[in-house]
Amino acid sequence: MKIHDIGGEFALIKRLARQSLTTHPDLVAGIGDDAAVIGGTFADGDYLLVTTDMLVEGSHFRRDWATPVQIGIKSVACNVSDIAAMGGSPTLMFVSLALPPETEVAWVEALYQGMTDACRRYGVVIAGGDTTHGERITISIALLGRVSPQNLCLRSHASPGELLCVTGPLGGSAAGLAMLSAALEPLADLKEKHLAPACRLDVSPIIATLAGAMIDISDGLAAEVNHICEQSGIGAEIIVADIPIHPSVHHAAQLTGNNAFDFALSGGEDFELLFSISAQNLRRLLNKGIQATVVGRLTEAMSACSLKFPDGKRTPLSGGYNHFS
Amino acid sequence: MKIHDIGGEFALIKRLARQSLTTHPDLVAGIGDDAAVIGGTFADGDYLLVTTDMLVEGSHFRRDWATPVQIGIKSVACNVSDIAAMGGSPTLMFVSLALPPETEVAWVEALYQGMTDACRRYGVVIAGGDTTHGERITISIALLGRVSPQNLCLRSHASPGELLCVTGPLGGSAAGLAMLSAALEPLADLKEKHLAPACRLDVSPIIATLAGAMIDISDGLAAEVNHICEQSGIGAEIIVADIPIHPSVHHAAQLTGNNAFDFALSGGEDFELLFSISAQNLRRLLNKGIQATVVGRLTEAMSACSLKFPDGKRTPLSGGYNHFS
Repeated sequence: MKIHDIGGEFALIKRLARQSLTTHPDLVAGIGDDAAVIGGTFADGDYLLVTTDMLVEGSHFRRDWATPVQIGIKSVACNVSDIAAMGGSPTLMFVSLALPPETEVAWVEALYQGMTDACRRYGVVIAGGDTTHGERITISIALLGRVSPQNLCLRSHASPGELLCVTGPLGGSAAGLAMLSAALEPLADLKEKHLAPACRLDVSPIIATLAGAMIDISDGLAAEVNHICEQSGIGAEIIVADIPIHPSVHHAAQLTGNNAFDFALSGGEDFELLFSISAQNLRRLLNKGIQATVVGRLTEAMSACSLKFPDGKRTPLSGGYNHFS
Repeated sequence: MKIHDIGGEFALIKRLARQSLTTHPDLVAGIGDDAAVIGGTFADGDYLLVTTDMLVEGSHFRRDWATPVQIGIKSVACNVSDIAAMGGSPTLMFVSLALPPETEVAWVEALYQGMTDACRRYGVVIAGGDTTHGERITISIALLGRVSPQNLCLRSHASPGELLCVTGPLGGSAAGLAMLSAALEPLADLKEKHLAPACRLDVSPIIATLAGAMIDISDGLAAEVNHICEQSGIGAEIIVADIPIHPSVHHAAQLTGNNAFDFALSGGEDFELLFSISAQNLRRLLNKGIQATVVGRLTEAMSACSLKFPDGKRTPLSGGYNHFS
């Protein structure tokens, strides 16, 4: 039986979690959120956050598309995004690299330059790691962070009646990828969005003080809404017409024969944030100058997750990026 | 310029460390030890330890030699060994896996069974990770631990006059590997030592209360002595005749046309511990029933690291496993 036979990556993780030791008195939240949350550590009561992410050449980046600086920036951003989604601040990073023996030292140094630039932007320090050889360049990052208990935004913290918001336009990264895959030169903003994205640590600490659940959009809006609903045991209704689509996505969709809406709904790696929030707290958030777009609302569990189209029709909300589907 | 042109893995890490942000007020010790040591965390003053290790199929394990259970055991043991070498106790583990899409679910579950068995043995809990696709199976582990400041054994904690000791016989893993590489069936103990090794967390907490510097023997005795001396700014004299050689190594050396002594001195992955200790504390350690073998002594910096042969001759101590040499 292969991984896609059981339903792909998320089904596999669930099976593995069931068979492993995954409970510990200090573990506030483990497998199933953007980062693990560990109590009993900081003297001031803050929780320790730990997230890990692995990028493999050919699967997550291509050296003919991205410069090593861009690959370094992206590998840091996708990890910082996980810490941001918990409401936390990143602190120390550990980098494990597998490199083919013929790798140019200058390439590795440029990769580290990109990482160091991104680390400086996000206030992160590289504190260790491992370097070894392998046929394919593989970058595995473990990132620590911390969060105060009152700012912790778990996926399970959403409640029926709350609004679902996103921090920015979606689909840009997937549209950039589609252009590159079709051997077309993407518009500069899409290229940047796919190859050297930023994450939303600029707004996450403020959102965290007012939001319920939060998650970063790394597997597509549809998948992330489903993650929040599954963990919170509730449903959601997403209003299709309200989903903000990155302005350059339409152009890319036309050129590649895709639907702009699909890029926004199912495209991965936008690294914007999706969060649940009460109407009252959303007003407070907007008053602080934070931009957020309401894309739907959370409902009772029985209603499941659905998409509502402008003509009033509804379809179940499925989709999202799965590494083994 | 390729990685081996600048001197391999360790030279690369030094270059990268120089160009990156690697200082942080909480960082007691970062790049250059078995694990990073982070202060300002636990309320009781303990330090947080973080170590990461990446195992790549073809480079670190072969599916035709090792069962998935063995690969799981080894991937945990090599990380726990790093925490043990700091004098600490491991706590929570994060596993990132890259898997080819055609991987059998049963294989991944057996890998996790090996990891879970090893975790139970060492008191570790799997708290998260990442699963993605890649052409080669890659296992990247980040392991947390904690240590009290008085038990912390940095590589830089060695002093001239101290004795250098190892916790057990060496060369077994390298001899097992040499047999497998020559398509010979290794003796069961060598096979176990190479494919499913244990680490010395059973004795490290006691040694840590009495030792100066400590390091785990993952790159060979010669390399580890050099690491301790470099970090402590001192020299060492290793007495060749005193190095304990795993009893089955001689047989393997004969069959593969190698020298048993080379396996013990330069073979990697024994996962025994090398530590510096005063003569007085060594007596205390032995009185507690801990087995340790003196292999040499630490000297002033000017004398560098040397090997002393039975005929009284000395040679500089070089060698050890380097991923890019």
